[in-house]
Amino acid sequence: MRDLNKRLDLCSINTATLGYQQPIHETIEAVARAGFGAIAPWRRELEGESAKQVGRHIRDAGLFVSGYCRSSYIPADNETQFMAGIDDNRRAIDDAAELGARCFVMVVGGLPAGSKDLAAARQQVHDGMAILLEHASSRDVPLAIEPLHPMYAADRACINTLDQALELCDALDPSESGSVGLAVDLYHVWWDPQLEAQLTRAGKEKRLFGFHVCDWLVPTHDMLLDRGMMGDGVIDIPLIRNWIEQAGYAGSVEVEIFSRDDWWKRQPAEILATCAERLQSVC
Amino acid sequence: MRDLNKRLDLCSINTATLGYQQPIHETIEAVARAGFGAIAPWRRELEGESAKQVGRHIRDAGLFVSGYCRSSYIPADNETQFMAGIDDNRRAIDDAAELGARCFVMVVGGLPAGSKDLAAARQQVHDGMAILLEHASSRDVPLAIEPLHPMYAADRACINTLDQALELCDALDPSESGSVGLAVDLYHVWWDPQLEAQLTRAGKEKRLFGFHVCDWLVPTHDMLLDRGMMGDGVIDIPLIRNWIEQAGYAGSVEVEIFSRDDWWKRQPAEILATCAERLQSVC
Repeated sequence: MRDLNKRLDLCSINTATLGYQQPIHETIEAVARAGFGAIAPWRRELEGESAKQVGRHIRDAGLFVSGYCRSSYIPADNETQFMAGIDDNRRAIDDAAELGARCFVMVVGGLPAGSKDLAAARQQVHDGMAILLEHASSRDVPLAIEPLHPMYAADRACINTLDQALELCDALDPSESGSVGLAVDLYHVWWDPQLEAQLTRAGKEKRLFGFHVCDWLVPTHDMLLDRGMMGDGVIDIPLIRNWIEQAGYAGSVEVEIFSRDDWWKRQPAEILATCAERLQSVC
Repeated sequence: MRDLNKRLDLCSINTATLGYQQPIHETIEAVARAGFGAIAPWRRELEGESAKQVGRHIRDAGLFVSGYCRSSYIPADNETQFMAGIDDNRRAIDDAAELGARCFVMVVGGLPAGSKDLAAARQQVHDGMAILLEHASSRDVPLAIEPLHPMYAADRACINTLDQALELCDALDPSESGSVGLAVDLYHVWWDPQLEAQLTRAGKEKRLFGFHVCDWLVPTHDMLLDRGMMGDGVIDIPLIRNWIEQAGYAGSVEVEIFSRDDWWKRQPAEILATCAERLQSVC
């Protein structure tokens, strides 16, 4: 396992961690100033901006884009809406290419409104991903499926385990071309009894595109916006980082924390300093 | 799949559904009066009572005990505490025997305070279950492991999927004697991509001891106490009931709803009438 001490160049900041308090250009400067090697911006931050210019700023600041967040949801309750979602994702993939993103993060969506048909939603995800994969490959943007915690199965993502995500990758890309793989986020997968085995499998199939860290707090007060800073929760982060790196992952260790009532109330500089300290001490 | 219309005798009320508003003897009368065939009481309701007398009252009311809730947590941070938990569970198993319970429901516990070692907690669960299984077999009480939703992995149960629970059953009881199996609760497993396959496997291994229904609400406002009444959420209940019954399950369809801010604020008679109506119309 890589030693992160004095190696923040191996680490990335997902901008959600900073609570979107500043415009993207200030955030780029802050992340670079704090010594990190990469950044993972969100689409909402690029609204009204030129992806090309933001990409140039990121490179000029000495950073690269570890991942671009994120897809809009694929399952829809009619064909028109489904295709509108696909088009929206195509544009986002174009922006990911302009940014030079190492991957485009796919949070695939849950059940369409009013539906209880999980199998159908999962089939729509497969079909939509197949369309997007063609476009993404033409733009040289790897698609990273992020399996989300099962508590989001209904409303955010119906892909909920590494095994399931890898089955989907295998169906979409049987030749293991590197065009589709995984964004592995500790928050979503830390509980999985098959975690080590599936990370090993993902590595063998060359599907490890991203690795996100934060912590699981006990108690958790909000199902979406109460993630913990690394070290403040119950996840054995070094154990799992060792597994994923043994499996072949050599990309950024990316911090992604949604924390409405705690970290998002602090100054970006304080958040960044804490991330830097924790990455080097407890990850 | 069995038709539940006018067959409330196939259905059971887990008393948690009623919010513990009444003493157990009143609850027994209310459940019997509403036409149900079975009841699943909680240990807190038997405090200060004689399990033998409660069991007799349940039988006299024309009911049986579909399951007795539930184990205290197994993982502990020292041997003394671990053995105290085992002893506590042994006494509960004795009460389950007095009640004539079809199974004793095992919510196995999560990480001991201060621990991040999920593998060790899972090993403790195995070791504790092995001890308890001997006692339970001598009392003719089947142990039903309830895999809990992964969002409870840290603080309530580190057994989180049917596959994992069945692996544990296989380790404890390779001869498939019927002494250890599963309580399958829709709330915990509805999202599982392997759900149908694992239910089929559980049926083949004769490990289907309980089936609990409720619904998953969108949005969910509380991770523990915001379960929905059947029909008010996104779970395709008939689909999954068909799977488990095709797999061989022939026991009660047991309603278990934790709903602090909605159903628990209503009168037991109204809750029971709604359960009866929904079991016959949407399950």
